[in-house]
Amino acid sequence: MSKVRVQMMMSLDGYIAGPNQTAEKPFGEDAESLVTWFHGLKAFHEIYGLEGGADSPSNDVVREGFVNVGATLMGRNMFGGGPGPDKAWEGWWGDNPPFHTPVFVLTHYAREPLVMEGGTTFYFVTDGIESALARARAAAGQADVRIGGGGDTVNQYLAAGLVDEIELHLVPTLLGKGRRLFAGLEHARPALDLVRVVSADNVTHLKYRVINS
Amino acid sequence: MSKVRVQMMMSLDGYIAGPNQTAEKPFGEDAESLVTWFHGLKAFHEIYGLEGGADSPSNDVVREGFVNVGATLMGRNMFGGGPGPDKAWEGWWGDNPPFHTPVFVLTHYAREPLVMEGGTTFYFVTDGIESALARARAAAGQADVRIGGGGDTVNQYLAAGLVDEIELHLVPTLLGKGRRLFAGLEHARPALDLVRVVSADNVTHLKYRVINS
Repeated sequence: MSKVRVQMMMSLDGYIAGPNQTAEKPFGEDAESLVTWFHGLKAFHEIYGLEGGADSPSNDVVREGFVNVGATLMGRNMFGGGPGPDKAWEGWWGDNPPFHTPVFVLTHYAREPLVMEGGTTFYFVTDGIESALARARAAAGQADVRIGGGGDTVNQYLAAGLVDEIELHLVPTLLGKGRRLFAGLEHARPALDLVRVVSADNVTHLKYRVINS
Repeated sequence: MSKVRVQMMMSLDGYIAGPNQTAEKPFGEDAESLVTWFHGLKAFHEIYGLEGGADSPSNDVVREGFVNVGATLMGRNMFGGGPGPDKAWEGWWGDNPPFHTPVFVLTHYAREPLVMEGGTTFYFVTDGIESALARARAAAGQADVRIGGGGDTVNQYLAAGLVDEIELHLVPTLLGKGRRLFAGLEHARPALDLVRVVSADNVTHLKYRVINS
């Protein structure tokens, strides 16, 4: 059966973004150190159709994150935050977003699907995470569903027992404040199985299978 | 110069113990999953002079934690919690504690040093973390000072810019609640350098150099 997969960058103290995320600073304030490993990579350049970038064991890990993904799920903030009811707002991913799949956006504001270049269409889902996942699974067919983020969305799916695999990009930085991954799991703690570790100079990639009881 | 080193077990969601730590449950409630990797090891058996235990890349990491340690620092809870002014209480480490160095215990209750078997003597320090570190450095000479824990003690030393090296034993478990490592660093976030990764089936050992500005 197809899997529900998550890939997240996380600081060593458990944050996936600093405070006050905006279009200009999607990772929030004082959080540049979270993404520098990623922006330097050859695989990052490839996502945007660019030449260059550094060789690193991280490249294959990042590429793997896009393999066999048939649909993407994300929260409204990851789509582009901004004023919810503004139906002209196309998010902050540009004309050709790097998803190349149907993307199901969790939101309180219904609107028509937004067709972008390169195979990405944003669908706006207003009736909850389970409905969004059902639609994503249907769109993905035999392929997997990737939860793009952000942290709150991932946490909701984790607490609901709906995530099968987590790949963490654990970055050697301390943010001290911001948005946490793994919050809200006081009463719903899935077990984890460590599947694979890939080590680079400036990041550690840790893949876990999630065992939902 | 000698270093100040930390080794801690941490869950993937950042906890180093569950809630309600007691002598019977030094890691608190619902936190068994944090220590099972450790209790099975050959190196754990060696600490207590026992035969047996599992082969694992983790053994050398654990052994390394005790090499070149000339003095140990810990908080009162790690010494043994319990009623502070009870001067008959010898902590929960038994007659022959696994430290084999002078151990400086941060506490509000002055008392005479407590000499145990095997080279461990507990000294009780009531005038703060810097004084305790100065005494530990003096006792260690050219050797390193190891901060044994717990989390609050480590966090205080981190925030004060006094830690040189952290080895995390990152355990694939989610505790959901309890005592956090890396709390209280909103305004004092040292930079980290990833030094080494050792991967075992059920734990990932991550060593970081702490760059205090």
